[in-house]
Amino acid sequence: MEALSRIRVVLVEPTHPGNVGATARAMRTMGLERLVLVAPREFPSEEAWARASGAEEVLERARVVATLDEALAGCGLAVGTSARRRSLAWPGREPRAAAAEAVAAAAAGTEVAFVFGRERTGLTNAELDRCQALLTIPTVPDFRSLNVAAAVQVVAYELHLAARGAPPAEPPAEPPATADELESFYGHLERVMVRVGFLDPDNPRRLMRRMRRLFARARPERTELNILRGILTAVERCCGGRGPGR
Amino acid sequence: MEALSRIRVVLVEPTHPGNVGATARAMRTMGLERLVLVAPREFPSEEAWARASGAEEVLERARVVATLDEALAGCGLAVGTSARRRSLAWPGREPRAAAAEAVAAAAAGTEVAFVFGRERTGLTNAELDRCQALLTIPTVPDFRSLNVAAAVQVVAYELHLAARGAPPAEPPAEPPATADELESFYGHLERVMVRVGFLDPDNPRRLMRRMRRLFARARPERTELNILRGILTAVERCCGGRGPGR
Repeated sequence: MEALSRIRVVLVEPTHPGNVGATARAMRTMGLERLVLVAPREFPSEEAWARASGAEEVLERARVVATLDEALAGCGLAVGTSARRRSLAWPGREPRAAAAEAVAAAAAGTEVAFVFGRERTGLTNAELDRCQALLTIPTVPDFRSLNVAAAVQVVAYELHLAARGAPPAEPPAEPPATADELESFYGHLERVMVRVGFLDPDNPRRLMRRMRRLFARARPERTELNILRGILTAVERCCGGRGPGR
Repeated sequence: MEALSRIRVVLVEPTHPGNVGATARAMRTMGLERLVLVAPREFPSEEAWARASGAEEVLERARVVATLDEALAGCGLAVGTSARRRSLAWPGREPRAAAAEAVAAAAAGTEVAFVFGRERTGLTNAELDRCQALLTIPTVPDFRSLNVAAAVQVVAYELHLAARGAPPAEPPAEPPATADELESFYGHLERVMVRVGFLDPDNPRRLMRRMRRLFARARPERTELNILRGILTAVERCCGGRGPGR
């Protein structure tokens, strides 16, 4: 179960303290102990402690941060959860497949995050852009609304099963790029695309999302990202100030 | 999913109306609609309706009975849930196996019940005697206490997967790039890398191999490859003949 110690659960802007407590309890039953709260409306709170029902340690050790980027610091794999299939087909998967992948990555030393959105509105597209994979819990088509702690319970259950059955860790591959390294790369890529006149700087969204999707699927290693950054820097030098970009 | 219509969820003496509402919601997301409450402390109740969050229909149609025997009337298979392994070695199983068995039975016309116990004390041995099978949700050994609605969520999720059978095919993605399109892209990428002075044209091998590996993992769609080609062309235009490349 050591792999589970490298997996954190991130709740983005939870509104109801009861859900935070229920999430802690769901995690604790399955061996997950690292909870990160992004801008919770109320924390700590009595109701969270009451609903945790014995899993207080998870709450006591919970990290509270201001932004999703902080919550994902150091992560090599961030899995965002969403009730709907988005129009742009992200690399989506179901809990079982996502858990297997996450546990394998964690067993090889990668820090992993599962990101759950607000009770009413879930995660924004910009937040999903920060993730390398999208997880959708299967439901009936006419009622997709899982409670957030119930969603955490299902995912934690699958992680528990995957960790229990995990084969011995693979010899460590090269380390994957972390979430913050990926963000720097995307920023750099966007600047270069603008510089060479390929991207309308006032409307970079759709194209950048496609680029994110493409690279997210590849899950670049750190070395590979360094090569890509090197190419971008060489392009900038080559274009100098003379390109059509601004 | 027709099999699910023959599966009922039985809560024995639930104390907290919130758990009844959360159970209804958990069931509804997964396509279970028949809830039976044995001697609930408080039902109907406002809190149950609030926590059902849109799954009110399950609550409105819930049957309230006085005894477990009434709740199990007509059932050919009753599965009791328990957090602990009892001293008496019951025929216990995990959710996935129990769900497969239950869905197979229900598909063959059998009425099936999943029985969940009281929040604090679970089911008595006498109540488990009424069941033909025992289900235990795997947990860490030192914290077995799942919330009852969370337990229902896990079981309902497994029932949903079992009833669905093979996952439906993914919605048709955009066509992947073909091998020759990929080759053209790699050729173009190599020329641009040389042009911007990033690649030693006499020894491009290692770096190009890494780039191939990276993009191969991503399995680019044709549209994505066209975007990448567009960026490369824009870079060539931007660098003109003035770059350090030859």
